[in-house]
Amino acid sequence: MSTKVRVMCFGLSLDGFGAGPDQSLENPLGVGGLEMMAWVFPTHVWREQHGEDGGETGTDNRMAERSFEGIGAWILGRNMFGPVRGPWPDESWKGWWGDEPPYHVPTFVLTHHARKPLEMKGGTVFHFVTDGIEAALQKAREAAGGKDVRVGGGVATIQQYLRARLIDEMHVAIAPTLLGSGESLFAGLDLPSLGYKLTDHVATANATHLVFGTA
Amino acid sequence: MSTKVRVMCFGLSLDGFGAGPDQSLENPLGVGGLEMMAWVFPTHVWREQHGEDGGETGTDNRMAERSFEGIGAWILGRNMFGPVRGPWPDESWKGWWGDEPPYHVPTFVLTHHARKPLEMKGGTVFHFVTDGIEAALQKAREAAGGKDVRVGGGVATIQQYLRARLIDEMHVAIAPTLLGSGESLFAGLDLPSLGYKLTDHVATANATHLVFGTA
Repeated sequence: MSTKVRVMCFGLSLDGFGAGPDQSLENPLGVGGLEMMAWVFPTHVWREQHGEDGGETGTDNRMAERSFEGIGAWILGRNMFGPVRGPWPDESWKGWWGDEPPYHVPTFVLTHHARKPLEMKGGTVFHFVTDGIEAALQKAREAAGGKDVRVGGGVATIQQYLRARLIDEMHVAIAPTLLGSGESLFAGLDLPSLGYKLTDHVATANATHLVFGTA
Repeated sequence: MSTKVRVMCFGLSLDGFGAGPDQSLENPLGVGGLEMMAWVFPTHVWREQHGEDGGETGTDNRMAERSFEGIGAWILGRNMFGPVRGPWPDESWKGWWGDEPPYHVPTFVLTHHARKPLEMKGGTVFHFVTDGIEAALQKAREAAGGKDVRVGGGVATIQQYLRARLIDEMHVAIAPTLLGSGESLFAGLDLPSLGYKLTDHVATANATHLVFGTA
């Protein structure tokens, strides 16, 4: 019954960027960043979540489906929660996702600036954690009730957890697109030295799925 | 009848390294670097070149085969030619490949240190070029007799030619292996800004083949 810490469906470009440059309200994943998630949109599980029929039911769908299974809490970096930098000017920013975010569980946002919890529709409660990645993980584990904790991203957040060797499993999906610049996931990160190895890989027409685990 | 400049079958790790750390006589591609070429060894074309029967005749083989077709001259970085750094102590180093290197055409080695041409068995002649990448390319084009020029590597050499927008086509093969450190091909290289885009991609069990071209 041990709780795992997982990165799932994290999109990367061919040149290794997990987000494009110039994040803004219009471009949550940076310029060009949405293309990295293009493999998800045709899947059955994505379409179903958005009230559509049909969709792909092969490998991409299975990987997308797995990413939601058994998750009891999420951890997000501040920039994944929104484009607001520095102290919160007010409480008006409630994430990119509208009234009902896709998390449906307690979700811990790493920030240097305190803010009271934010309860959304559908079970998502955003908790703002100001005392670091390990404190956030401890809170997320407690909130997950025996289920797994998913580290959503972005790149800087995932790198911090990897360097602390706190990730048990990381699934990245490499899209057939170039970003040219942005945040590089592997730059300066020595995965083998940190004890990680490739444990699974499978390619589809739309993405190359890589799964890393502790060796 | 224009001569193209091509990078072919350049091996990369999942984390984007084109060579492992600590190149030496024992590890021409750096520690762990040979794993990046593991997809080539089972191919029919490789086995045939090494006097063996059989071998894989699918996508990997086709990509390996293409890489030798229509090449009239090669360009290599100094470190791809050997582990010797600085001025040549003597003329005893003749490349990694023994008496009969696999080039069979004029091969231009970029170096800061002059050395007279070196004629090997099977048609390979190493020419040492001390006046930069453009001079080397001009000489290679002339020597290629209307055929294409292949830039062999390593990473620093390919990056220089890409930054100068002198590569027409680049095929990289990503192996399912992690190196952790080494020379990163994409680091600091903005391919879209340089006018390159992905023109083809296909994955096999042993490699993901990516082809980049000018947009």
